[in-house]
Amino acid sequence: MTTGDSRSGPLPPGEGRPAVVLLSGGLDSATVLAATRAAGYACHAVAFDYGQKHRSELTAARAVAEALGAESFRLVRLDAQAFSGSALTDDDLAVPESPTEGIPITYVPARNTIFLAHALGVAEALGATDLALGVNAVDYSGYPDCRPAFIDAFEALANLATKVGVETGAFKVHAPLLMLSKAEIIRWGTTLGVPYALTVSCYQATVEGQACGRCDSCRLRREGFEAARVADPTAYR
Amino acid sequence: MTTGDSRSGPLPPGEGRPAVVLLSGGLDSATVLAATRAAGYACHAVAFDYGQKHRSELTAARAVAEALGAESFRLVRLDAQAFSGSALTDDDLAVPESPTEGIPITYVPARNTIFLAHALGVAEALGATDLALGVNAVDYSGYPDCRPAFIDAFEALANLATKVGVETGAFKVHAPLLMLSKAEIIRWGTTLGVPYALTVSCYQATVEGQACGRCDSCRLRREGFEAARVADPTAYR
Repeated sequence: MTTGDSRSGPLPPGEGRPAVVLLSGGLDSATVLAATRAAGYACHAVAFDYGQKHRSELTAARAVAEALGAESFRLVRLDAQAFSGSALTDDDLAVPESPTEGIPITYVPARNTIFLAHALGVAEALGATDLALGVNAVDYSGYPDCRPAFIDAFEALANLATKVGVETGAFKVHAPLLMLSKAEIIRWGTTLGVPYALTVSCYQATVEGQACGRCDSCRLRREGFEAARVADPTAYR
Repeated sequence: MTTGDSRSGPLPPGEGRPAVVLLSGGLDSATVLAATRAAGYACHAVAFDYGQKHRSELTAARAVAEALGAESFRLVRLDAQAFSGSALTDDDLAVPESPTEGIPITYVPARNTIFLAHALGVAEALGATDLALGVNAVDYSGYPDCRPAFIDAFEALANLATKVGVETGAFKVHAPLLMLSKAEIIRWGTTLGVPYALTVSCYQATVEGQACGRCDSCRLRREGFEAARVADPTAYR
């Protein structure tokens, strides 16, 4: 497993400590939950309803949390007012079905900042100082909030923003997939027993979770299973 | 006006650019809105409903935004699940009526991080790169997210987390009250024409906005008006 950043790859031992894991219902975050649990953390999953068109990923998130033995599952509802201007939330904007240059139209303003801020609040209330999320700088290089510098900056912020952070400097933001290819993620997750059939990656999945097979997210997922030489369990419509 | 931090005091000229101003309905954020408008920004106010017991501050926020000529007013609803464990939100915890040591029980986990994260999303959608908020490191030294280092860290994060930030590094977080005493804030706001009678600071205000006169926030406000030698327009119950 190649790692170009110290956050990438297996987490340091959790020794039973609580961790807050951001869960989207997709392939990446399911792998992070499995990896965090495997490292010995008591995992509290947090998913976000931000008005995304692909609602079935929220159903998937709950199923994944249960299947992977999360201690708790929270669905945090976010006000859609803060999330306009993205093809993932606006009915007037179509999800592109071919690769695009630069920052994609599926980028949601400040999304990972908002998600991590809420996760930090949950962590502080739970007494947890470990956060884990499935950002990836390889396939999502066009998203500013999926890069190592962003994760570093949020970790620094967490240790200044909170009671526990100021007192101990203990907050860690784990991004175990940061520098992995999709195939590496799938191979790792397969060894960890991630139930990929439960996950939904498609930006325009049906209510039942069937994938379009054409959007960027579907394309990356399909190519990942092919490259990993793992059978693709995705239900395509 | 004493300033111990370059962010404190009047803002640099806005020249008509849009700015997102966090508005709570209290005295401090009303002063920030007036100061941001006076510096020449087109101000978009954002208030947060996070299940606070003192609901009348939200009514006050809207009235203040209108009175001070904000271009828009957004009330963003936040999921109360992310805000447990504070005397400001939990019915089981009483608001203290005498000064306390250390981080007060009225501290809300990661509150300013969550507020700023949402403001950042609004700013990015509006094309604004200026954020302003009324944090104060003098009276609220016990709150980790009211200190200069926190503001610096959030500004750094904003410039890594967003499309515009990465491309231009233009995000600025203005905290004009950061190093001011309550009396200095009130004197400044009075010269700017802030309608303090509309503002609600009390942590346990009545539905009509009448103040208890006993909580920390009331005490600071009352002493501020006295020290500023400005008539206190607060309606006490």
